[in-house]
Amino acid sequence: MTTQQLTEQIQKKKSFLCIGLDVDLNKIPEHLLNEEDPIFAFNKAIIDATHHLCVAYKPNTAFYEAYGLKGWKALEKTIQYLNTSYPEIFTIADAKRGDIGNTSSMYAKAFFEDLGFDSVTVAPYMGKDSVEPFLAFENKHTIMLALTSNEGAFDFQTKTIEGTELYKQVLETSKAWRNSENLMYVVGATKAEYFSDIRGIVPNSFLLVPGVGAQGGNLQDVCKYGLNKHVGLLINSSRGIIYASKQNDFAQAAAIKAEELQQEMALILKEQF
Amino acid sequence: MTTQQLTEQIQKKKSFLCIGLDVDLNKIPEHLLNEEDPIFAFNKAIIDATHHLCVAYKPNTAFYEAYGLKGWKALEKTIQYLNTSYPEIFTIADAKRGDIGNTSSMYAKAFFEDLGFDSVTVAPYMGKDSVEPFLAFENKHTIMLALTSNEGAFDFQTKTIEGTELYKQVLETSKAWRNSENLMYVVGATKAEYFSDIRGIVPNSFLLVPGVGAQGGNLQDVCKYGLNKHVGLLINSSRGIIYASKQNDFAQAAAIKAEELQQEMALILKEQF
Repeated sequence: MTTQQLTEQIQKKKSFLCIGLDVDLNKIPEHLLNEEDPIFAFNKAIIDATHHLCVAYKPNTAFYEAYGLKGWKALEKTIQYLNTSYPEIFTIADAKRGDIGNTSSMYAKAFFEDLGFDSVTVAPYMGKDSVEPFLAFENKHTIMLALTSNEGAFDFQTKTIEGTELYKQVLETSKAWRNSENLMYVVGATKAEYFSDIRGIVPNSFLLVPGVGAQGGNLQDVCKYGLNKHVGLLINSSRGIIYASKQNDFAQAAAIKAEELQQEMALILKEQF
Repeated sequence: MTTQQLTEQIQKKKSFLCIGLDVDLNKIPEHLLNEEDPIFAFNKAIIDATHHLCVAYKPNTAFYEAYGLKGWKALEKTIQYLNTSYPEIFTIADAKRGDIGNTSSMYAKAFFEDLGFDSVTVAPYMGKDSVEPFLAFENKHTIMLALTSNEGAFDFQTKTIEGTELYKQVLETSKAWRNSENLMYVVGATKAEYFSDIRGIVPNSFLLVPGVGAQGGNLQDVCKYGLNKHVGLLINSSRGIIYASKQNDFAQAAAIKAEELQQEMALILKEQF
């Protein structure tokens, strides 16, 4: 999927919502545990109930790997279902990978070719040659960690390197990498005051924003400083949507929560565009 | 496994060699492609031929994920085989994971509990709360990237933060984290001159050292500056050993390459201890 197609979907659906599919078997409705594949059954119900309210889904690979083969199979089924039933949806493998060049190529192959995701999240610590193998894939997107939503973001990311914070160096440096037009960035919603500086460095890039909801970030604040002329934001919510109810009505409850965010986004889009 | 047990194995085998199991189906002997599980068949043959010459094996998860379900199954069979047949071996999941706390917990569960690895590699960019969930597991080890062996290491890791290089800040900062005694660090062999500074910061920790062989690092140089009083080094070689031959004799050829390194290590241990 191209970023233009993604922007068109945002305008059409009046939504820049991404729903995180972080499935924990301890948190899903008990009746699903009798299904042959409870994780996929849960995802399918959530997707069917919410796909018109969001433009992206983001399974976090940790939640699938934690269930071994069964989990990996559920991940495969989920992305296949998305690609077949809702091809207009932008898909994100939240994997936070990154390794030396020949190894990153294998990860890129795994997520872009084997699984068929539109994008994957990566970590910047190992630098240019650990990220460029992902960037080499046409119409695929590499979403690099810049400023994350957790407390540990202040351990290294906000420390000053030669006069500039590390996360800004990461943004700035990455712009010179080969095929950097395929880069997007993770910027946590819990640090909304940083968005104007970030937009100064990457005015045109899409930012994937976790931390709205369970982690305490505020949608209005993020939009105030983070929107660009093509919208340029994907706001992720995981737990706040998918675990809205543990009863039979879990999918409808998720849709209600998703619609609340979508409506808020529609208003913002109406005011700004 | 405890670090003391690992050190005892090193003394017993006169080896601190770790063999990287980075299996690429394009590089293994063709006759194995007829096996039901070519990846596992390759690993089993390599392990059976080399287990007496090394103290650790390190499958890199990228090479398994690239083959989807088949790959993940081969990874499971490989770690099960190691834990059953050679329980004295230290096992490393080279996964370079790291995410917000609840997600890192899922990764830790995946690698330590579900798969049963002794250790896993992690990336430091997201800071303390992204690594501590791994450290919480008793007798399991978390091997954090400090200074990697690739060119991109110079993009951020060696940049100066408040007077100190980032990788040194990573080492220093991590010492204050809860259960930091379960930390080991990745330090690339291609930067042997950095080892004395690193030993100044983490004198007692094990260092996992990639980059000997295919990536150009030199064993003598690394040992000169990197050994501590408990040895404290695990030297990894992947491609240089496992792809020594693409013929029927591939396992014996791997054993010959492994033995060359083990002999060099035995000499170093004899001189130093």
